[in-house]
Amino acid sequence: MERTGKAKIIRTTVQMQQWSEQVQKQGETICLVPTMGYFHQGHLSLMDAGKSVADHLVVSLFVNPTQFGANEDFGAYPKNFDRDFNLAESRGAAVVFAPDSGEIYPPGFQTSVVLSELPRNLCGLSRPVHFQGVATVVTKLFNIVKPRIAVFGCKDYQQLQVIRQLVKDLNFNIIIMGAPIVREVDGLAMSSRNVYLSPDERKSALSLSSALTLAERMIKQGETRCKPILAAVTALILDHRDTRIDYATLCDPETLNAVDTITSPVLLALAVKVGTTRLIDNRVIDPGQ
Amino acid sequence: MERTGKAKIIRTTVQMQQWSEQVQKQGETICLVPTMGYFHQGHLSLMDAGKSVADHLVVSLFVNPTQFGANEDFGAYPKNFDRDFNLAESRGAAVVFAPDSGEIYPPGFQTSVVLSELPRNLCGLSRPVHFQGVATVVTKLFNIVKPRIAVFGCKDYQQLQVIRQLVKDLNFNIIIMGAPIVREVDGLAMSSRNVYLSPDERKSALSLSSALTLAERMIKQGETRCKPILAAVTALILDHRDTRIDYATLCDPETLNAVDTITSPVLLALAVKVGTTRLIDNRVIDPGQ
Repeated sequence: MERTGKAKIIRTTVQMQQWSEQVQKQGETICLVPTMGYFHQGHLSLMDAGKSVADHLVVSLFVNPTQFGANEDFGAYPKNFDRDFNLAESRGAAVVFAPDSGEIYPPGFQTSVVLSELPRNLCGLSRPVHFQGVATVVTKLFNIVKPRIAVFGCKDYQQLQVIRQLVKDLNFNIIIMGAPIVREVDGLAMSSRNVYLSPDERKSALSLSSALTLAERMIKQGETRCKPILAAVTALILDHRDTRIDYATLCDPETLNAVDTITSPVLLALAVKVGTTRLIDNRVIDPGQ
Repeated sequence: MERTGKAKIIRTTVQMQQWSEQVQKQGETICLVPTMGYFHQGHLSLMDAGKSVADHLVVSLFVNPTQFGANEDFGAYPKNFDRDFNLAESRGAAVVFAPDSGEIYPPGFQTSVVLSELPRNLCGLSRPVHFQGVATVVTKLFNIVKPRIAVFGCKDYQQLQVIRQLVKDLNFNIIIMGAPIVREVDGLAMSSRNVYLSPDERKSALSLSSALTLAERMIKQGETRCKPILAAVTALILDHRDTRIDYATLCDPETLNAVDTITSPVLLALAVKVGTTRLIDNRVIDPGQ
């Protein structure tokens, strides 16, 4: 087991389980923040939230190959372990759990956790294997780290719903906290993928948060029909250079099924390719407030 | 929480988890014996094995609808809760966990645990949804009961392998014990489904254990080619009245992939319909011994 400063690096599932069982035996609790690394302010906000609700914070750092499609950016996904470790330590992590791929998927591995409904919407449509990969690796992390609480960002809203559902369906006794989206000062939702953006693309990327704000204004002003709202959202995004809409959907915040007329809080979820970079953003909008 | 004698009946997942967490806090261990009830000597042997290896024995009793196919005997599966409860209590169970179907599969349930390789063999071929149902409900039971050890019968050999694999793949820190097949004095493997057999069918049912013994003799005498062994096994079974072979397979005991030539221990697995009752049996045969 490596040691640097106050946080511990653990690389194997066996050592991680031993550490967690030791903590549990002392009657203490663990909060898990699962990440793929390359931390930005959003990740740090998850760690801060996690640190405050349990005795020990464990940050996992694993770029999970099974949640990337064949044509996605797994190989290129940005990495900087030393910087990430120092940041996690500075946020009070007791352990950074950073297994390699062979530790998580040994030869003969063949088990998946599959949801039948939630992945049929939004990102699941263009990323068919994505949520199976997420659900499986998170199930494994829950059994390895044994947290009482786990924190996920609301930016990956569909992922958060998938995790909530699998926790309920598989009877994990784990509290799932959703942490608010953290944004740059101009509104762009923070993402590890933002580093891919050229200066021009960076400007076009603002179309996502602008579209959320536009839709929120329309809904607050009494518009209940989704069609004109989505038309305005689409027009705004396509008015920016080099944007291609994967989806712009108004849907039920629980089931993620599309809605036509807004009568209760609604999720506006966006996925937009800016150049070659796929960005997502979302907001739950309450018509009554 | 109902109470009868020394064993406790628990019906809800929340109460079961609370009980298990209380036990764990005291540093004590739980052994789980998952069953579908209607106990015979085989079940009792699992309980005896389980009782001896942990501080507390929990017997779950749940006829799991999702592991039955549309044309299988879910509705007719034999039941006798009071007798089962008394038997489990007499074998030292601390808890009989007997949830109803709605407790295990509440509205909106949508998560499954799926293995990609092991179910492609043997029973998985004629029962395509069976092991997905088994893997999912066992994953749930592990999270609800939180055992350190779980006992499964070797009679459901493929099930045992599926459970071992999912425990490894999903990082459950649970020891899986396989308990030997328990047989009637004439050799018939005990099964809750044996009650379906008419007196004539009961005689034909002996063809399974006879076939295992025949194959074992051939292998011990030096036969290494699977073809003549399976021909003899098939002839023996079909020589009995009202038998229909679902499969008779010699395969690798780990992967369950069929083998042609026997060079190391091999599993002979049988599934035979006797009248309308589907029976299974198996034996691992070591050519070297």
